[in-house]
Amino acid sequence: MRLSINAVIAIFSLYFQSVNAQSEQIITEDFKPSAVNQPERIFPKVNSQRRVRASISAPNASKVQLDIGGVKYDMRKDDKGVWTGESNPQDEGFHYYQLNIDGASVPDPGSLYFYGAGRLGSGIEIPSSDQDFFALKNVPHGLVSENIYFSKLTNSFRRCFVYTPESYNENTKMRYPVLYLQHGSFEDETGWSAQGKANLILDNLIASKKAVPMIIVMDNGYAYKAQESNSSDKNPKESVFEDVLITEVIPMIDAKFRTIPKRENRAIAGLSMGANQTMRIMMNHLDTFAYYGGFSGTANYPNSDAIDASTFLNGKYKDGNALNKQIKLFWLGLGTKEPAPFPKSIGAFRTMLEQQGIKYDYYESPETAHEWLTWRRCLHQFASKLFK
Amino acid sequence: MRLSINAVIAIFSLYFQSVNAQSEQIITEDFKPSAVNQPERIFPKVNSQRRVRASISAPNASKVQLDIGGVKYDMRKDDKGVWTGESNPQDEGFHYYQLNIDGASVPDPGSLYFYGAGRLGSGIEIPSSDQDFFALKNVPHGLVSENIYFSKLTNSFRRCFVYTPESYNENTKMRYPVLYLQHGSFEDETGWSAQGKANLILDNLIASKKAVPMIIVMDNGYAYKAQESNSSDKNPKESVFEDVLITEVIPMIDAKFRTIPKRENRAIAGLSMGANQTMRIMMNHLDTFAYYGGFSGTANYPNSDAIDASTFLNGKYKDGNALNKQIKLFWLGLGTKEPAPFPKSIGAFRTMLEQQGIKYDYYESPETAHEWLTWRRCLHQFASKLFK
Repeated sequence: MRLSINAVIAIFSLYFQSVNAQSEQIITEDFKPSAVNQPERIFPKVNSQRRVRASISAPNASKVQLDIGGVKYDMRKDDKGVWTGESNPQDEGFHYYQLNIDGASVPDPGSLYFYGAGRLGSGIEIPSSDQDFFALKNVPHGLVSENIYFSKLTNSFRRCFVYTPESYNENTKMRYPVLYLQHGSFEDETGWSAQGKANLILDNLIASKKAVPMIIVMDNGYAYKAQESNSSDKNPKESVFEDVLITEVIPMIDAKFRTIPKRENRAIAGLSMGANQTMRIMMNHLDTFAYYGGFSGTANYPNSDAIDASTFLNGKYKDGNALNKQIKLFWLGLGTKEPAPFPKSIGAFRTMLEQQGIKYDYYESPETAHEWLTWRRCLHQFASKLFK
Repeated sequence: MRLSINAVIAIFSLYFQSVNAQSEQIITEDFKPSAVNQPERIFPKVNSQRRVRASISAPNASKVQLDIGGVKYDMRKDDKGVWTGESNPQDEGFHYYQLNIDGASVPDPGSLYFYGAGRLGSGIEIPSSDQDFFALKNVPHGLVSENIYFSKLTNSFRRCFVYTPESYNENTKMRYPVLYLQHGSFEDETGWSAQGKANLILDNLIASKKAVPMIIVMDNGYAYKAQESNSSDKNPKESVFEDVLITEVIPMIDAKFRTIPKRENRAIAGLSMGANQTMRIMMNHLDTFAYYGGFSGTANYPNSDAIDASTFLNGKYKDGNALNKQIKLFWLGLGTKEPAPFPKSIGAFRTMLEQQGIKYDYYESPETAHEWLTWRRCLHQFASKLFK
């Protein structure tokens, strides 16, 4: 068979088109099980392109999808009824995800589960270049304690997790400063130790003497005033988290743990919704806290307009000189890939701080969005500057 | 239309047949959300017949089942694509379960997740008549601490959970006895505090002065000797849990916590596989422990043959008089509905104890099988007799 030159060109052209189209699709076969899989589970896996490969047996399903990063990827069925599929490359760090089986959104039976997006669901860990700072290493490890308490303000049992550094149990006379550390919206008090790895970050910082040993208290930022029994259910829920923290949690922690119960030895920080909450609490209680950390959030959220310091938060930022004397550290952090409104909203807040002459530290997490690697990095940076 | 008397009888007869057949199926509509649901989740629910009703949106599925107690119950689809279905009445207490969507076995997105059957999966709580003993009540609550350690024997990071009673943090001079408490097969170190409610059981016992304040250590019963790097992977895994517990965990606990490090102040207990393991450890280390609890398991499992005390466990039960002097409490428990081989196997073990004149306590949990309500009740009974 002889081909005309045009035919040859046409074939080559098709070939290269195909390669080009496929090059985005070529999947490097170096997948390894995710670091947050259930014991001995092989799937989900992650490869060097940071693609996620999930797999589940669903022999009678007609459609199974991997749902991650807001995109649903169709999975393929083999002759044994096992479905497998891959995502596009993901950002480094931790992501929530789920599987969708014939329309049902369910956790992947292969992964560990984390509370986020208002539910316990699957999580996956994409290895990051700097993951050593939150790795489980052979250094002295502190304890993370589940602490159940009854809140009179909410008329309910609540729970906080408390990190105590390794030396806490060794030296029973030493007293410690405390960081109050809050999760984001639709997350809970488990987030900072489970997906946030706050305990491992502090274990590593303390072992390398980059942070002073401290206690960390991680409470639940959702707290609503107990309804009168005869009140209408139509009343909107009234958040009392600030009061719970100030009048119930802090006194309890100062009584139960060997803290240094002074403002110079207390910090408060949070991520996203928690940054907004803790910024308000900080400014209302400068007699209680001397250090503030806002990770991916400020109290003007979701607004990006210029802030008038004379009215914003009842004028709490009016007197920059006074704040600079009272606040030992005002720290803000943000991921470089965060979506709107975070960059502009936090930008507007920084402009206000600068106009008021208020000193602050600012950190950007490279190549991360509104997700946990941003916040792990923020905690790592922030904690190293506390109580010094 | 007029009916013959025969036709009327035939119709009545059909009617009563139908009622009789249906009477087993009549479902009482008093379902309430399970106590171990995720926050604000309505399903799964339980009714006064102890039936479980599950529900999940799966609009494109062709078959969805509720899989509980070894039975798969078909669920029904409504016009919105939501599937709902009920189980037959279940035993009181805690059960693992899952949903099956077109052949895929997955956790129910409505429930909390518990590690059992070798995976994190759904759990449901059927209210029990005696649930007050493990209820979350407004009494002083101890802490449950996650304790990470590196094991040289396994060359891996391991984890145990440690319950410290409420007074532990108040009175920093008091020292406490310790109960080492083990889970069953395909469970892990989270079981006793999550589905076992060991912390709440002890909080309640201690608050009512029915148990002395004690520390409880809950480790992982799976521990395998580190393989030499040049050894064949074909070598069977060698369990070193006994050595890990005796030479790594106990010294660590005695160093990290204010224990009374004496045999008279140490107890060891376990459920099922954990009962078997801890019984062997107890008998090999009577210099370390003075109290033993075996919940739904003994070291002759799965055998039900008569036991020859001269050879069983290397003759450890030969000298009944000596054991009666050394062992302060030898305690066994079993559920009345446990399946083979447990009743006969434990029966054969009890016969041996009686033949050897060895004193022991024996408890039967009414109407429960090889499940967590049996073990919660066992712990409740056993802990009240310790260190007195």
